[in-house]
Amino acid sequence: MGKTGKRNELHDLGELALIARIRARAEQIPHPELVLGIGDDCALLRPGVGQELAVTTDLSIAGRHFRLDWHPAESVGHRTLARGLSDLAAMGARPVAAFLSLGLPATLVRKGRERTAWIDRFLDGLLALAAAYDTPLAGGDLAESPLAMADIVLTGTVPQGKALLRSGARPGDPIYVTGSLGGAAAGLELMAKLARALKKSPLRKQASPPPRIPARMKTLLAPHLYPQPRIAQGLWLSGNKLATAAIDLSDGLSTDLMHLCEESRVAAEIDAAALPIHTAATQAMALHGGESYELLFTAAPDAAIPASIEGVAVSRIGRVVKAGPDGPRITLRTAKGAQPLERRGWEHFS
Amino acid sequence: MGKTGKRNELHDLGELALIARIRARAEQIPHPELVLGIGDDCALLRPGVGQELAVTTDLSIAGRHFRLDWHPAESVGHRTLARGLSDLAAMGARPVAAFLSLGLPATLVRKGRERTAWIDRFLDGLLALAAAYDTPLAGGDLAESPLAMADIVLTGTVPQGKALLRSGARPGDPIYVTGSLGGAAAGLELMAKLARALKKSPLRKQASPPPRIPARMKTLLAPHLYPQPRIAQGLWLSGNKLATAAIDLSDGLSTDLMHLCEESRVAAEIDAAALPIHTAATQAMALHGGESYELLFTAAPDAAIPASIEGVAVSRIGRVVKAGPDGPRITLRTAKGAQPLERRGWEHFS
Repeated sequence: MGKTGKRNELHDLGELALIARIRARAEQIPHPELVLGIGDDCALLRPGVGQELAVTTDLSIAGRHFRLDWHPAESVGHRTLARGLSDLAAMGARPVAAFLSLGLPATLVRKGRERTAWIDRFLDGLLALAAAYDTPLAGGDLAESPLAMADIVLTGTVPQGKALLRSGARPGDPIYVTGSLGGAAAGLELMAKLARALKKSPLRKQASPPPRIPARMKTLLAPHLYPQPRIAQGLWLSGNKLATAAIDLSDGLSTDLMHLCEESRVAAEIDAAALPIHTAATQAMALHGGESYELLFTAAPDAAIPASIEGVAVSRIGRVVKAGPDGPRITLRTAKGAQPLERRGWEHFS
Repeated sequence: MGKTGKRNELHDLGELALIARIRARAEQIPHPELVLGIGDDCALLRPGVGQELAVTTDLSIAGRHFRLDWHPAESVGHRTLARGLSDLAAMGARPVAAFLSLGLPATLVRKGRERTAWIDRFLDGLLALAAAYDTPLAGGDLAESPLAMADIVLTGTVPQGKALLRSGARPGDPIYVTGSLGGAAAGLELMAKLARALKKSPLRKQASPPPRIPARMKTLLAPHLYPQPRIAQGLWLSGNKLATAAIDLSDGLSTDLMHLCEESRVAAEIDAAALPIHTAATQAMALHGGESYELLFTAAPDAAIPASIEGVAVSRIGRVVKAGPDGPRITLRTAKGAQPLERRGWEHFS
C-alpha cells in the first residue's frame, strides 16, 4: 500500500484508519482454523488433520462484473464474496477465510453527501455474507485505482480425497442441478430496464448514484443482487460421497456443463422439459444465464439423490454420454427432437 | 471469465487457448504439496503434518505499481510475484503455490508488431521467478480490463508456531537487515531518467513501447526491475528460531520498521553509520526507498546472528527500545546526534 504512483489520496483519506476499521470489523468473525488474521505479512491457517485446502480467486471489475451506476455497493460486496464462496461449494469445501484486494478511486473511499462512504457499504454487503458462512476476512491489499476492482480469494477445507472435481463424470451418470435456473439473468434484465428508466426520470439530477429500488421489485432482483452460494449442499455432497463430478453455475449452464464435460472427457444430454426454470426467467436465461451460483453435479446411476438437499430442491436434468470423435458436447432434447446446445455465456451489461 | 461487460474481446483473441497455454506452462513446475492445479473450481493444497499455511495477496496496478511505458513486461511479471514471495519470506514460510488474477486490455493479449504478446512476456518473467523458487502457478482469474492490473496470491507452509511475526520484538533486541538498502530506489530513479531521455530522443517514433535498456545499465536497474525475495534467509531464521520479529522491506525501512514497532508495541533506534547503503543509493533512498525486499528482523540480545545467511550479508543497524507515551517511534542516530525518523514511503512515478 505504500508504492504509490501519483500522490496517494487514500493516505489523505486516512488509509491507515480505514485499514484499522476493516481489521476491527473482520476480527468479529472468528474461525478455529484461522490462527493469524489481518496485521502481519501473511495470514496463518491451520487446517485440521487429514484436510486439504481449497483455494480460488475471482476478479470483479467495474463495467464488466458490476456497474457503479446500477449496483448498490452492498450488492457489489455481496456478489464479490459470493463468487468465491460458490467455488468452494463446487468443491464441497468448508470456508476457512477470505482475502480481499481492493483497487478503488478515492471518491469511493471518501464520505460524500451520503453519510456512509461507498467502501463501507461494500464491506457491509461483503461482511454480512461472510458472517452468514462463518468466513473471516483474513487479509488483502488496498490501492488507489482509477478503475474500481475487487479480487477475492477464498480458502476452505475438505477431507483428503473427498473434494468434488469436474473430472469424475462417467457415461450413464445422471446430471442434477440445485435450485432454479435463470433467476439471476432475469433479475439482471429487470435491473437494466430499471436503471434506464431511472436515468430518463426528470427526478434524477445526480450524476450516477445507484438506482433506488422499489420494495416490490426486490424479490425479483434478489437472485441477481444477492445470490446465495450453495455451501451446505456442496458439503452434503462431498460428505456423502454421492457426486461423481461437480461445478458451480457461474458462467451459465451451457458454458459450465461444457467445462465439466471437457475435464471429464465426456458429452452430455439435457432434457429441456426437466429444467427447473425460475418463474421470472425464459428457457434461454436458464440455459445460458450466468451467476446463478447453483451447483451442477453428476452421480452414479444407482446413487440415491434426494429431491432436496439442505432445504434446496434438486432436479435431474439429463445424463452424461460418451464423447463422440467430434460430435456436439451437449445435446438439448425437446419435444421437437434433439439439437446441439452451444456454449453461450451470458453477455452482461451489453 | 464469462461475465463480460461489453463484447469480450479476450474471447476473440482465443481466451480459452490462452488459458490452456498458461495451464501447460504452469504445470511444468510440480510441487509435492499441490494436489490439484489449474482446471477446476479451486486448487487443492495438502500441507504436510504439523504445518501452518501462510497466505498473502498483493495488488499491482498500472500507473501506480508499474508503468507500461517504463517497465519491460518480464519485469512486471517478476515484480508481481516477488512482492508475494517476499511476504512469505518475512514469515519464514516455504512457497507452495501462487494464484494470479489478471485484468488486461485486449491490446496486451494480442500479438502486435512484436512477435510475442505482452502477456506472454509478463508470464516469462513471472514463471522464471516461480521456477527459481519452486512455486507452481495453481490458479487465478483472467478478465478484460481497460486498466492493466495483477493481483498475486501466495501460499506457503511453515511449521506450527515457527512463523516469524511482526509482533515479537522486545526492548533490548538488536535490529538486523539483510543485503543492502536503497538499490531499488536508485534503480527506479535511473529508470525514470532513462525513460525521459528516450522519450526526448528523435529516434523514438512509437507511442509508448517499453524503453530499450542499454546493457551496461542493467546491473544498476536490476535491484528495481528484478528484486530477489529472501526466501532462503526467512527459512533459515524460522528454522533456527533466532528472530523475535520480522518484516520485509516492501514500503521502505522507515515505514516497515514502524509497522513492526506498532505490532510489537515498542520503539526503535537506528544507527545511520551502520546502514548497509547500496553503492548507487543515497542515505534517504536507504531509509525510505521501497521494494528492496530485504528482510528486517530483530533477535534476542544473546542470539548468535551470523555475518551472512545463505550467502547474503546481514547488518546490525540498531536496537529495539521501550515505547514512550507519545515519543517518536523511530530515532535516527547520526554523528550530529539523534533525530526522529518520520515514516516516509517512497513516492513512485511522481
